[in-house]
Amino acid sequence: MTRHPGSHHHATPPKDRNMTSEPTTVPATPRTIDEAKVTGWWSTAVSRIRPGEILLRGYPVEQLIGRTGFAEQIWLMLRGELPTPAQHRLLEAALVAAVDHGPQAPSIAAARMAATCGVGLNSAVATGAGLLGDTHGGAGQQCMEILNRIMCGEHPRDVVLEFRKRKAYIPGFGHRFHPRDPRRDPLLALVREAVDAGEVPGHALAAGLALEAALAEGRTKPVPMNIDGATAIIYAELGFPAELGRGLFVLSRSVGILAHAWEEYEGGARIKGPLPTPLLAGYHGTPPRDLER
Amino acid sequence: MTRHPGSHHHATPPKDRNMTSEPTTVPATPRTIDEAKVTGWWSTAVSRIRPGEILLRGYPVEQLIGRTGFAEQIWLMLRGELPTPAQHRLLEAALVAAVDHGPQAPSIAAARMAATCGVGLNSAVATGAGLLGDTHGGAGQQCMEILNRIMCGEHPRDVVLEFRKRKAYIPGFGHRFHPRDPRRDPLLALVREAVDAGEVPGHALAAGLALEAALAEGRTKPVPMNIDGATAIIYAELGFPAELGRGLFVLSRSVGILAHAWEEYEGGARIKGPLPTPLLAGYHGTPPRDLER
Amino acid sequence: MTRHPGSHHHATPPKDRNMTSEPTTVPATPRTIDEAKVTGWWSTAVSRIRPGEILLRGYPVEQLIGRTGFAEQIWLMLRGELPTPAQHRLLEAALVAAVDHGPQAPSIAAARMAATCGVGLNSAVATGAGLLGDTHGGAGQQCMEILNRIMCGEHPRDVVLEFRKRKAYIPGFGHRFHPRDPRRDPLLALVREAVDAGEVPGHALAAGLALEAALAEGRTKPVPMNIDGATAIIYAELGFPAELGRGLFVLSRSVGILAHAWEEYEGGARIKGPLPTPLLAGYHGTPPRDLER
Amino acid sequence: MTRHPGSHHHATPPKDRNMTSEPTTVPATPRTIDEAKVTGWWSTAVSRIRPGEILLRGYPVEQLIGRTGFAEQIWLMLRGELPTPAQHRLLEAALVAAVDHGPQAPSIAAARMAATCGVGLNSAVATGAGLLGDTHGGAGQQCMEILNRIMCGEHPRDVVLEFRKRKAYIPGFGHRFHPRDPRRDPLLALVREAVDAGEVPGHALAAGLALEAALAEGRTKPVPMNIDGATAIIYAELGFPAELGRGLFVLSRSVGILAHAWEEYEGGARIKGPLPTPLLAGYHGTPPRDLER
Repeated sequence: MTRHPGSHHHATPPKDRNMTSEPTTVPATPRTIDEAKVTGWWSTAVSRIRPGEILLRGYPVEQLIGRTGFAEQIWLMLRGELPTPAQHRLLEAALVAAVDHGPQAPSIAAARMAATCGVGLNSAVATGAGLLGDTHGGAGQQCMEILNRIMCGEHPRDVVLEFRKRKAYIPGFGHRFHPRDPRRDPLLALVREAVDAGEVPGHALAAGLALEAALAEGRTKPVPMNIDGATAIIYAELGFPAELGRGLFVLSRSVGILAHAWEEYEGGARIKGPLPTPLLAGYHGTPPRDLER
Repeated sequence: MTRHPGSHHHATPPKDRNMTSEPTTVPATPRTIDEAKVTGWWSTAVSRIRPGEILLRGYPVEQLIGRTGFAEQIWLMLRGELPTPAQHRLLEAALVAAVDHGPQAPSIAAARMAATCGVGLNSAVATGAGLLGDTHGGAGQQCMEILNRIMCGEHPRDVVLEFRKRKAYIPGFGHRFHPRDPRRDPLLALVREAVDAGEVPGHALAAGLALEAALAEGRTKPVPMNIDGATAIIYAELGFPAELGRGLFVLSRSVGILAHAWEEYEGGARIKGPLPTPLLAGYHGTPPRDLER
Repeated sequence: MTRHPGSHHHATPPKDRNMTSEPTTVPATPRTIDEAKVTGWWSTAVSRIRPGEILLRGYPVEQLIGRTGFAEQIWLMLRGELPTPAQHRLLEAALVAAVDHGPQAPSIAAARMAATCGVGLNSAVATGAGLLGDTHGGAGQQCMEILNRIMCGEHPRDVVLEFRKRKAYIPGFGHRFHPRDPRRDPLLALVREAVDAGEVPGHALAAGLALEAALAEGRTKPVPMNIDGATAIIYAELGFPAELGRGLFVLSRSVGILAHAWEEYEGGARIKGPLPTPLLAGYHGTPPRDLER
Repeated sequence: MTRHPGSHHHATPPKDRNMTSEPTTVPATPRTIDEAKVTGWWSTAVSRIRPGEILLRGYPVEQLIGRTGFAEQIWLMLRGELPTPAQHRLLEAALVAAVDHGPQAPSIAAARMAATCGVGLNSAVATGAGLLGDTHGGAGQQCMEILNRIMCGEHPRDVVLEFRKRKAYIPGFGHRFHPRDPRRDPLLALVREAVDAGEVPGHALAAGLALEAALAEGRTKPVPMNIDGATAIIYAELGFPAELGRGLFVLSRSVGILAHAWEEYEGGARIKGPLPTPLLAGYHGTPPRDLER
């Protein structure tokens, strides 16, 4: 079989090999199954693909092209309907805010390193996105869960107390580098505006601000909301489940990951490690010894 | 050290262990190095992060939030400047067009399976994005390279001849499922419009159409341009290097990957394989045998 | 800069660009830092690499080559010392047992699909290994945690009760496909043998068998231990922390993942999805509709 | 549906949803298909899984456990037969030699960073393995391809000339850190021994040494074979195709990746980036500017 470039041409394995499941034991009578059992195993409500047809959440793709924007499309694919203008505006802002935080973030650094290892940009993006785990990419999702608790009646002070007992940071508040995260104010201003216009309910904003206030009580240095807290408020106001808070952050940060990977790729470096040559990692292990055998 | 939730708090390893590189051999005089050598190893033109400051391509992030959209931000991060309205419009269209092609695509199927394996949505997206390799995700990039050759003077017929000799498909043309890809016409109409308005040069469009025509010569059944070909024209008209054609496709398809992964995650399936239970993969290998030892 | 093949040649970015961190603001006096602060950030007890020297856990690599086997090396790298012959024997058995469970497992299926997408075998293995998450690859680790609880005094019946209340399966017991997992008996026989010879303590074996017995009480159909339970016992007897139970499973299953990916790669299929052509995934979403805008 | 821990319990999506492919258009007569068409799509010669049965390359897994070692199992899974003792010995040596090269390698560094991001060890291993691309992990494979050319009659001097013309390193020779790679001599000694005993043909060894000699001609400082060259010789002597040279390297290096990821995980660091706090990446981009819109 010739290997050829080209897209979406699905695999056709050698007929004489794969089209029979048990060559070593020929069945007397071939068994048939309901085709729908197999196609139904992969059934989806997201899209319908048939010859000449691509329906995305019910809309023919040819109607969406040129008439919806990328952020609207993200909303449509995740929610099943198109956003209102207010929802659209807030989603754009949240996605814009989180695209990048520089190469000291492991997701960005790993993607840059990947770009020098001889893999495609797809693998570099996958490397970076994969690192947005519970700790590095999950704070927004965790903050949404806390906002939900407060919106369900829990007192912000009790939340603060609980985290203090565990000696843990509250996800969505404080930042190692920034005394005050520069993304907080413009994001919250947009939410405030939408609340005032009656476009979003405002419960998540209230919960987040109450938590921020509770966290500042009795402290000389406040712990202001960070990007994760501010986007958590937006995604909660927009009705996204907490898990999709992470999902949307992944889409947003993938942009920065790609931009950094591309910069490294273009620079032509090869096998870039964390330390500039000729620095070598330190060692604090067993001193040199001989193998006795 | 307490494990706490929270974002962007960078690692602080135990002081007594990691802050010295060679505990087994104490150096007489500690060596110093130029700090810029280390920070310069990770230097970037994409963003500058300092306490209280996040510059993206020179713009303070707080000015971008609410005033640029996500697609514009993608352009800014990759190109260094904001797009013109015409560039912006074409980019939105190309990103919208490629978001999804259903669960028969391995990238989507693998992401759906990942979502049932007990990993975060970040890993599910990474799994899908990672599969957009040279064959599954590279046709747009490869088509851009061919368009470049034609724009540099090569005759479309020679390109067709070359691929026919290799018995290879020309990337960006034809589709296994669609007799005519429904995304071709609306995308090309937008490019045509922009060319007519003098907003993009039109060379890539001309090259793509010439190639399509050359490919149809002497055939009863034409091989029309597909999504990869149409977006290749757009990205080429917009001045993106071919590799970023892949990169932009990865960003776009990540939306469908996330939507599908989320659907599967929400459905609650566990360890979903490709075959519905109780079907088991066929076998065409060595018949059962005993180990003689 | 020429792109060249070759190994371990670390990146050297263009001097005039990266070797200065802040070209836009020239500092009056260059700052220096303690070199050990940087190399110490990456300090490790696993290996020491210096010109002409590769120490693995203190042993020069040239002494290990030809005198240790791969499984012993795995032990050495993870534990810091070489295993005893009994430890070595049990580790080999556990690693051998878990290499593969066929293409109906999502990890294997995803790796096979990756191999048809135009990525390297490294990416195919990474795709499969990445899917060994809490649900698909974590049962052994979770079973080790349960064994630890029983070894710390908890009664097996209480564990069974707890899981029945949650309507949850106990990790390490029962199997969808196998009425009795064929890997259980030979693995437990090896542990029994080692316990009888005084080579391992036997507490984890006792805990696992007690749990299996408690789980069978009052049932007509027992729920015998599966591969995850049996290897959990081995890894617990060998003193591995639970997380490394997952880690070792990943190393073991990577072999099957590679073998399957290679078979697919060799077969030459392209963009293999889960369904054989021309089957298309089902659809249960919004019926076709027009975009009103 | 309750989410429960436990392994290999495959997904059962809600019956009323997924078991029908086209709820919006009820077909008059359900279509059936040949079951073998579906199971055959996933047919494999690697393993056969049936209730109570796990055949690996024809051998029942219960016979392999305790009677084969992990390295033998790797050979069996990839080649279909068990190795001879000599083949086994060389494979163990090659796998042992390549397990680790410290945290300055991007694969190791990225895996260590992943371990601090809140993902499982499976994702950390996947991150590291994924970085073993054409440049970082492909030198052995590329060297095997060159050895094949020499074994097919090409003169080593012509190979050297070709790479010199391209100003490229020959994969498998020279090392940035090591004047002489300490793994070369013990690996080649084992091959020599096997050649002398008539256990392997010796053609790849001859080719590799001839290439090393040709590369040294007219140079004051020789460019000795490195780990990639030495393992390429072993894998070629053992009859592995070049692509599996990469595959075997991935299995081997995954051990070091796991050991390093585990060390980082155990250390408890969070979101570890490449630079120790408070160092921040340098910046060489557009100076700060205001957004004019």
